[in-house]
Amino acid sequence: MSNLLRELSVELGERSYPIFIGQNLLGTCDLSRFVGGSQVMLVTNETVAPLYLESAKGCFPGKRIDTVVLPDGEKYKDWQTLNRIFDGLLERRHTRKTTLVALGGGVVGDMAGFAAACYQRGVPFIQIPTTLLSQVDSSVGGKTGINHPLGKNMIGAFHQPQAVLIDTGSLQTLPPREVSAGLAEVIKYGLIRDLDFLAWLEDRVDALVALDAGALAEAIYRSCACKAEVVALDEREGGLRAILNLGHTFGHAIETFAGYGNWLHGEAVGTGMIMAAELSALEGMISRADCDRITRLILSAGLPGKPPAGMTADDFMNLMAVDKKNVDGQLRLVLLRSLGDAVITSGASPENLALTFDRFCSPE
Amino acid sequence: MSNLLRELSVELGERSYPIFIGQNLLGTCDLSRFVGGSQVMLVTNETVAPLYLESAKGCFPGKRIDTVVLPDGEKYKDWQTLNRIFDGLLERRHTRKTTLVALGGGVVGDMAGFAAACYQRGVPFIQIPTTLLSQVDSSVGGKTGINHPLGKNMIGAFHQPQAVLIDTGSLQTLPPREVSAGLAEVIKYGLIRDLDFLAWLEDRVDALVALDAGALAEAIYRSCACKAEVVALDEREGGLRAILNLGHTFGHAIETFAGYGNWLHGEAVGTGMIMAAELSALEGMISRADCDRITRLILSAGLPGKPPAGMTADDFMNLMAVDKKNVDGQLRLVLLRSLGDAVITSGASPENLALTFDRFCSPE
Repeated sequence: MSNLLRELSVELGERSYPIFIGQNLLGTCDLSRFVGGSQVMLVTNETVAPLYLESAKGCFPGKRIDTVVLPDGEKYKDWQTLNRIFDGLLERRHTRKTTLVALGGGVVGDMAGFAAACYQRGVPFIQIPTTLLSQVDSSVGGKTGINHPLGKNMIGAFHQPQAVLIDTGSLQTLPPREVSAGLAEVIKYGLIRDLDFLAWLEDRVDALVALDAGALAEAIYRSCACKAEVVALDEREGGLRAILNLGHTFGHAIETFAGYGNWLHGEAVGTGMIMAAELSALEGMISRADCDRITRLILSAGLPGKPPAGMTADDFMNLMAVDKKNVDGQLRLVLLRSLGDAVITSGASPENLALTFDRFCSPE
Repeated sequence: MSNLLRELSVELGERSYPIFIGQNLLGTCDLSRFVGGSQVMLVTNETVAPLYLESAKGCFPGKRIDTVVLPDGEKYKDWQTLNRIFDGLLERRHTRKTTLVALGGGVVGDMAGFAAACYQRGVPFIQIPTTLLSQVDSSVGGKTGINHPLGKNMIGAFHQPQAVLIDTGSLQTLPPREVSAGLAEVIKYGLIRDLDFLAWLEDRVDALVALDAGALAEAIYRSCACKAEVVALDEREGGLRAILNLGHTFGHAIETFAGYGNWLHGEAVGTGMIMAAELSALEGMISRADCDRITRLILSAGLPGKPPAGMTADDFMNLMAVDKKNVDGQLRLVLLRSLGDAVITSGASPENLALTFDRFCSPE
């Protein structure tokens, strides 16, 4: 594997798995040692298939490879589309020794991963994420699932992959909006746990937006390492892992309000992190200067600074009440105790929450 | 719990759980200590609800109880019906601290269990099985799931309950066909692992068919203990656990051929065990007298001795090829090495398999 730049291991006991990061690994990196049987079901979408399907097949020499090509988009992250994977597996008579491979962004990864979690009560899978967001977020940690009309990711499973292959080459075909969306999650790691990385990102954000290959590889590595560390400490989201949801409670509300797929997940998280920073400042946890610094970095990454026009404080409150991060009716939020140090709290004052909405939302 | 007759523990490390067996436990046995939060979602069906829903609610004093009532029948064990559970949970704003309760037979248990496995990536659940089949089979072992048009139980998860409550009183309202179907699984435990129990069953089969309460309680206890032992040794069906599928490979083919719900699962397994006994005899593993003894016991339990009219050897072969018990194309079957001792083998000769079909099937 001459193009392999970095390798790290997600430590989860018998469910530990490696992440390979490099340039042009697709088609050159042999992953067949992670396939237990002879069958592979490669799941991708209509956008990614023409770009990378053939080279991805080259990662599994000697295996019988079938493919399922899904429509592209968050709005297809539903049961009907998931069922096309089950149809394909059953029509081609895949047994419980099959291995699923997810080739694409977070939606493909979540759906192929959930299909693997459920097919015949669980088969192995491999992730080949092709977007920046999925490379730094959804390929690490084992969360899989689909959406329900009443809430995002409400149906799913924890299911760890056998291996993750990240080819930074695939980012060259990514639309700029999706690069920015991925950077939202990258910035998140700096904010919640790594002040040095945050400073590094402030220096390199322009290079990252311009797709500088070296900067991207470093940012992906540090992001995956940070997430892998958090996940290893708390696989089933009992406590610490929830800090990975910085900006997500606000963000999920934005995504639901806008209609799935109209705002990218990372865009909503970017705005959500600005709102979480504002609330953290109002709560006296971080300074106004810190808050401005966060806002500036997120805006430099090309992310939106406000929720969609027309979204009111009431919209937020209604949509946040069904968010998974609530325990028995208490609104729990991830805030910043200081830069580089996130905390999970249900203690934010209703007044400061209202003030935050005032500053960002459309009037009623 | 004055009516508690028996208690056993399924040993699965941190996922261990108790099974309570007794008379009239519904409404008198307090299960609220197995509910972590304040919310309970009780899932049942249209047949069971008028009989036991109110008394089941009495098992959860002090909890907020919502209910979802599903249509009754194996043909509803599909995604559309499963989704009614998710709809109910989200409409009533159940958080990830909710507990699901399955009140009914195997279909309700499999669906509520799978809903619990997937809702917000996994919430706890409690089983209250009300049919003999579900009491001795599906309430032990953590298998949950739904059917797919191309195969039974193809989509699911392993998800262990917090506790199982078995009220033998609920069997008094069970139709005779369903009592016989449950006895098929009871007989199975004798055949695969417990020759003493098999002899006990030969003595008591008439009493069991006549719903003798003492005999039922003993049969349920011994069946659950046997299954709990096998499951504890092999939770994820790596090896040994597959012996619980005696008669099931033939049985699943029968169920699929007949159309889900037309043959009861236990009826198909009963006939499947007769066919497995025949094949075991042809392979020289058990004697002709043993085979006759098995057939006689299964028939005395009121179970059918032959597959549906019109079902041919070809039908069996086609339907068995997608069965989960196959590994990379090899047809694996559970056969009897001797009475009370099952073995998993892919070594049965095609000639003897053909001869077995000859003796039981309609001609082409």
